[in-house]
Amino acid sequence: MKIGVFDSGVGGLTVLRALLKHIPEADYLYLGDTARLPYGAKSRATVARYATSSARHLIAEGAEFLVIACNTASALALDAIREAVAVPVLGVVETGANAADASSTTRDVLVIATAATVESHAYTAACAERKLRAIEKACPLLVPLVEEGWIESPVTAEVLRIYMAELMEQARGAGLDADTLVLGCTHYPLLRAQIEKAVPAPLRVIDSAEATAEQVARMLGAGSRELGAGGQEPGASVRFFATDSVTKFRALGSRFLGRSIEDVRLVDLGG
Amino acid sequence: MKIGVFDSGVGGLTVLRALLKHIPEADYLYLGDTARLPYGAKSRATVARYATSSARHLIAEGAEFLVIACNTASALALDAIREAVAVPVLGVVETGANAADASSTTRDVLVIATAATVESHAYTAACAERKLRAIEKACPLLVPLVEEGWIESPVTAEVLRIYMAELMEQARGAGLDADTLVLGCTHYPLLRAQIEKAVPAPLRVIDSAEATAEQVARMLGAGSRELGAGGQEPGASVRFFATDSVTKFRALGSRFLGRSIEDVRLVDLGG
Repeated sequence: MKIGVFDSGVGGLTVLRALLKHIPEADYLYLGDTARLPYGAKSRATVARYATSSARHLIAEGAEFLVIACNTASALALDAIREAVAVPVLGVVETGANAADASSTTRDVLVIATAATVESHAYTAACAERKLRAIEKACPLLVPLVEEGWIESPVTAEVLRIYMAELMEQARGAGLDADTLVLGCTHYPLLRAQIEKAVPAPLRVIDSAEATAEQVARMLGAGSRELGAGGQEPGASVRFFATDSVTKFRALGSRFLGRSIEDVRLVDLGG
Repeated sequence: MKIGVFDSGVGGLTVLRALLKHIPEADYLYLGDTARLPYGAKSRATVARYATSSARHLIAEGAEFLVIACNTASALALDAIREAVAVPVLGVVETGANAADASSTTRDVLVIATAATVESHAYTAACAERKLRAIEKACPLLVPLVEEGWIESPVTAEVLRIYMAELMEQARGAGLDADTLVLGCTHYPLLRAQIEKAVPAPLRVIDSAEATAEQVARMLGAGSRELGAGGQEPGASVRFFATDSVTKFRALGSRFLGRSIEDVRLVDLGG
């Protein structure tokens, strides 16, 4: 089984990392559309165009299953990608919402994400479909803190404390009795331990990278015959593609993947 | 005199703010190419294409003098803009370097900027032309902290303390005896007071927004006849253009300009 993982940048590597843990026998293709990031500020039509061209590249390279490890593309372009390709496609927004659905007994959940994801209200919509009430909060400092490598810094702990206090205040104001917090950005799994320290004890943290890998594993486990799996040896092969500087991708990406990235191929997907 | 001010986003409004203080009698046009930001990650050719189309729009609206209040465009596209338009063009990198040149007696200067500006080494090159040694440091957290509105936050004070300590260490390591610090990003003037608190006393802080406005004032004062000035009444008119959400531009921009922004016209400059 060859699984294609797509993100606008390196954040989706946290999803690949979780996939490698849960489905070590698969082969992987990862594409970071780094030349055209960030997707967050772009229109639905543009994001759909970028995401489908990226998806098609992964299919052309042999992907038999696609994971959209990009919140913006999952929120704005999942239907367009599903129309463009003939393989199963799973996005991080739906897998995060599915995990929240399974986790929450109060049916009230909290979501933290980038400003662009929050403005799209994709998590609120996905939660509403599952009869969950959701409150979303934008945490714009977390991505730059992660990219700066300040994971263990007291600065990050203090920023998280402030964000979480604001979120709890917001939830109280809206009368929510939340028992679940969804990390709605693929950068946030790197801060999971810090976030768990910053939230009140009864709140269960859903890491959408983990949630996605678990759901893919269930789907492939249940339907591996239909999906053409079988006969893989252990020891997955992983190939990386980026649309901009492969040097930057390697340097920053290794932190997200948790192991060194050797070979990245530069691809040109056009404008 | 109609002065056009251009930036990829709202940061250049700190330059407009300084211009309004120094040359209150001029009329202003401000264009934020918000649909295509950030410029930092893009190639020289793309930045030149975006910046010249933006410059042409300002000329078409009547600008008789252009201020490129965008570090990336100043670093990568100043020559292209000068070739594309027939009016005087000034960029923030050269005005910052000019101010450092006037300020420094040790001939060693420090520059803080975004990662993209530092990677372009535009300040090092501009300083070298003026026989100044420069050390540049990327401070990627400062723009999101400013955009979050955390100007007075202890978090920002701590981030600045860390960045400044790293910069001083870097300068010591390179054997520099710096007496001047250039704020090489148009967001940073909003943090000027905090930065001045964080740096060692003998370091003079050059705010490139102020430096730019002072240089424009000198040029117009000296050459106002050639530039067609004369007959302005006090009480400048300011018109705003943005290539993406005017609502966002108004909300975020007002903080940078230091006064409310009423009317923003959406313009389409193409791809």
